[in-house]
Amino acid sequence: MLVKLGYKEIEVSFPSASQTDFDFTQRLVNTPGAVPDDVWLQVLSPCRKELIRRTVDSLKGAKKAILHLYLATSPCFQQVVFNMNNEESKALAVECTKYARSITKDDPSTAGTEWAYEFSPETFSDSDPDFVLEVCEAVKAAWEPSEEKPIIFNLPATVELATPNVYADQIEYFCKNISERNKISVSLHPHNDRGCAVAAAELAQMAGADRVEGTLFGNGERTGNVDLVTLALNLYTQGIHPQIDFSDLKSVIDMVESSNKIPVHPRAPYGGQLVVCAFSGSHQDAIKKGFQARKKAGATNETYWQLPYLPLDPQDIGRTYEAIIRVNSQSGKGGVAWIIQRQLELDLPRNLQIAFSKIVQRETDMLGRELLPSEITKLFEDAYHLKRNPRFGLVDYEITTDRSQSPAPPEPGKTQSNRNLKRVFKGVIEIDGREHDIRGVGNGAISSLANALRTLGIDLDVVDYKEHAIGGGKDVKAATYIECTAAGSSQKVWGVGIHHDVVQASLTALLSAASSFLSSRPSTPIPFRPKRSNTIEIPSPESSPRQKAEGGSPLVNRLEASVNGTEKADVVTGGP
Amino acid sequence: MLVKLGYKEIEVSFPSASQTDFDFTQRLVNTPGAVPDDVWLQVLSPCRKELIRRTVDSLKGAKKAILHLYLATSPCFQQVVFNMNNEESKALAVECTKYARSITKDDPSTAGTEWAYEFSPETFSDSDPDFVLEVCEAVKAAWEPSEEKPIIFNLPATVELATPNVYADQIEYFCKNISERNKISVSLHPHNDRGCAVAAAELAQMAGADRVEGTLFGNGERTGNVDLVTLALNLYTQGIHPQIDFSDLKSVIDMVESSNKIPVHPRAPYGGQLVVCAFSGSHQDAIKKGFQARKKAGATNETYWQLPYLPLDPQDIGRTYEAIIRVNSQSGKGGVAWIIQRQLELDLPRNLQIAFSKIVQRETDMLGRELLPSEITKLFEDAYHLKRNPRFGLVDYEITTDRSQSPAPPEPGKTQSNRNLKRVFKGVIEIDGREHDIRGVGNGAISSLANALRTLGIDLDVVDYKEHAIGGGKDVKAATYIECTAAGSSQKVWGVGIHHDVVQASLTALLSAASSFLSSRPSTPIPFRPKRSNTIEIPSPESSPRQKAEGGSPLVNRLEASVNGTEKADVVTGGP
Repeated sequence: MLVKLGYKEIEVSFPSASQTDFDFTQRLVNTPGAVPDDVWLQVLSPCRKELIRRTVDSLKGAKKAILHLYLATSPCFQQVVFNMNNEESKALAVECTKYARSITKDDPSTAGTEWAYEFSPETFSDSDPDFVLEVCEAVKAAWEPSEEKPIIFNLPATVELATPNVYADQIEYFCKNISERNKISVSLHPHNDRGCAVAAAELAQMAGADRVEGTLFGNGERTGNVDLVTLALNLYTQGIHPQIDFSDLKSVIDMVESSNKIPVHPRAPYGGQLVVCAFSGSHQDAIKKGFQARKKAGATNETYWQLPYLPLDPQDIGRTYEAIIRVNSQSGKGGVAWIIQRQLELDLPRNLQIAFSKIVQRETDMLGRELLPSEITKLFEDAYHLKRNPRFGLVDYEITTDRSQSPAPPEPGKTQSNRNLKRVFKGVIEIDGREHDIRGVGNGAISSLANALRTLGIDLDVVDYKEHAIGGGKDVKAATYIECTAAGSSQKVWGVGIHHDVVQASLTALLSAASSFLSSRPSTPIPFRPKRSNTIEIPSPESSPRQKAEGGSPLVNRLEASVNGTEKADVVTGGP
Repeated sequence: MLVKLGYKEIEVSFPSASQTDFDFTQRLVNTPGAVPDDVWLQVLSPCRKELIRRTVDSLKGAKKAILHLYLATSPCFQQVVFNMNNEESKALAVECTKYARSITKDDPSTAGTEWAYEFSPETFSDSDPDFVLEVCEAVKAAWEPSEEKPIIFNLPATVELATPNVYADQIEYFCKNISERNKISVSLHPHNDRGCAVAAAELAQMAGADRVEGTLFGNGERTGNVDLVTLALNLYTQGIHPQIDFSDLKSVIDMVESSNKIPVHPRAPYGGQLVVCAFSGSHQDAIKKGFQARKKAGATNETYWQLPYLPLDPQDIGRTYEAIIRVNSQSGKGGVAWIIQRQLELDLPRNLQIAFSKIVQRETDMLGRELLPSEITKLFEDAYHLKRNPRFGLVDYEITTDRSQSPAPPEPGKTQSNRNLKRVFKGVIEIDGREHDIRGVGNGAISSLANALRTLGIDLDVVDYKEHAIGGGKDVKAATYIECTAAGSSQKVWGVGIHHDVVQASLTALLSAASSFLSSRPSTPIPFRPKRSNTIEIPSPESSPRQKAEGGSPLVNRLEASVNGTEKADVVTGGP
């Protein structure tokens, strides 16, 4: 996987420490195709001759190999662990380098291997910078690197002990004062004890380093090594391709987690499952607007990425938009609307977003946890009776033109049209298990049904209305949203209807609202038994005290005129 | 918990966003003792008057309150989310600040509350620095802070977009160019999208900031806010007490994990369960030596902390030493020895460490996983027959002085002593379920038993020997380690014995080695039936081809002289 991602120098083992490490190294070398010709196998060894010998043996047959030796240069390690002074340390470094040289690049029997040499003064970040230089000059003289075959001086923050600018200063001092800088690759090896390994690596590269050693998602002793995923994608978000391919980050995470048995943290940069998510309402709203603006502008993958709260396009690391919005009690209408849009393709009117987000908030507050998109979808379908309207079912209907009233004569200069003709709803509605034949007249389908419902004592005014298509081609559907007020009440209810037939979508939406209306009126008995059931009455102006039984609300009159005008064919072919 | 830890300014809610947030704020205010008099309650609101009103209402009755308003100043947010230009943004910031002022510090009915005001230009890190200054100057003029009651300008990296030095430069620019700097608290609010939030907070403090907003263990949207635990303990490891008490970090972790339902990562700085652990052999060895050096130097809690690989004393954050060493196939003798030392109080000789670590490595390689300390302990007890020696049991014994041989006459100038008197082991040994009476003569207890075992064909030479006390007072025990070679073999085996009686500890150790010896010799039948069982033979020089049946190995002769000299009282009173 590391090779596939694009890494060219890979430290694979500590061969002198265990048979497993030794065998693993030999197996890599001897398995055809396991290590491409342009990839360096790197192995680590302490400064002890028999261990160096064993380490070099593990590389027998390798194409390109980096032998990496380390030796303590920090007073703490010298005194506590090795009981050595500076002179002894330096002498040992030189001796081991010479020995390493004698059994690698100076040994004709290993000529099939291209050798590189890496030396780490440990803990560089806690060592006297001048002593490190002294040791490295001596090691360099012992190895004799060239510009073409540079020596690697790896300068570890074995333990991260100071702010990252201090590490960068130490690296800068080394880069400026070592001789023959052109024959040296200055390597970083930051650990994360202070949580600043990424910053340390970035600042130290700016200070002159050439190379970074780290691990995927920062595995390693204690707080881990610097995280190579973050380093690579940090470069990527600055417009520099790291030449490492993290476009399928998920598969990298799976491999790392199964290998390390340590999960990638949900908030780990780039890889964490929550990092392309937003819970807060204002964040969700901003992200939703950002995606809409991008879509509107016709943005492609080549368009400059600028989106609130998202530093990179989630698609670039194999994440999908669906996962971005997460809904808990801190979330607002924007996130909920986004979920409904992604899951059901419904573009809710703003007031319906507000109304439904209150339902969601009540649920998250009650459960005390985040809701899954599937739960939010179900909540929406239940609240607006999308799957099944348990109280109001449309059993049968027809909508005809009411020719009982003559159209008004055309105004001067206008041609005759049918737009003033009234519509008649005639159908069977099942309410709480009992069917009712009803009839109503209005400017269009919705108002005629509204008026028909008034004959059953259900008195609703339509105050908001929105309709849009879902999908395209043969499967296109209409989604209708209707907000109603009830007579004599400030209560507002929403109804939603979805159907291939645009008329039936509207009728269903109104029945959805009627159901919500009944349920929201605590005094309504269940089952609801309308007084005038099974009777058909044509409401007259007298039958409604509000004088608008026939005409419905002005809004619907306006809307229905438009709907009937544009969707006439549908009206004719629609209906069960 | 936040109050108990020592935090003095705590953002508790977004009261206008939900009834839950509003009620929670009021409950904090109205619960006696919930908020100490020196703690500021901070609440967040967008720049909309009705939301500011609602937010201020939630603080009714608070002693000290920080009203925190935010407004977009970055082009991305202005354009995509709010559709506002710079002039409109600035005007709204001023208008909302004036409104906030009118219903807080200028409203006599809220005089019981000490008010502070915080303003966040969002996303500061992606805004024109000069426009931010312009808005903040206008907001400052509208609020009119004083040196005693400064205004807080919070400058968020709402999304972390650049290396931390860039954020620090932006903060420095603000600090240097805002007027009346003495009336301003410059606050940081770093997010962690690039994994550099801690570094950004530290560099920006060095660049002039006064205050940091963050969360425990870096919870927060996406990659989270900056981690306050790391910031505090980073200061602590630099010798600056953060005035936040993390001495019981475990309980903080428990609270954070149960509240957020997100685990603290095993490698999170300071809090992660693996951060005071070491798996690698060389690390374990160094840590062990570090603790030994500290102990030897008589270090106290006041002694300067310098220990390989551990940037702070685990005890300072409520962690114990026991957890430090973790053993997997990468571990060496040091870690294993440390576990045995902590668990069994046994200070193993170096060669025994090496021998046992091979046993452990075989086990970890076989299981392919880390071993628990309890598993390592059990492995040790089994390998050296500590709980039960299934093959060699000491049923009964006595050790007497062999008076059959006259002591040699004293050398000239030396006084007569009993140190040349031989010891006689006489006892009953159970081997594979059958008891054998045996007898042997030697310089001391061990060699006399070794010689007695030779009568059964078990021919062991003691090549290494170590003994130390375990515990103190009445319960003091002796631990004895014996390394033996078998006659005619290069095979080495170790035996361990622990007993209140120092003599019996030695005898048990030798029988432990004898058992290992039999088990390591594949040709030995089970059960082992010695040829001369039930016979008592005093070996003569002739009976052993190696001419040392009586004397045992020179090492044991030397040792036993010393043991017998110093532990004579024990020898006399010991025995079953």
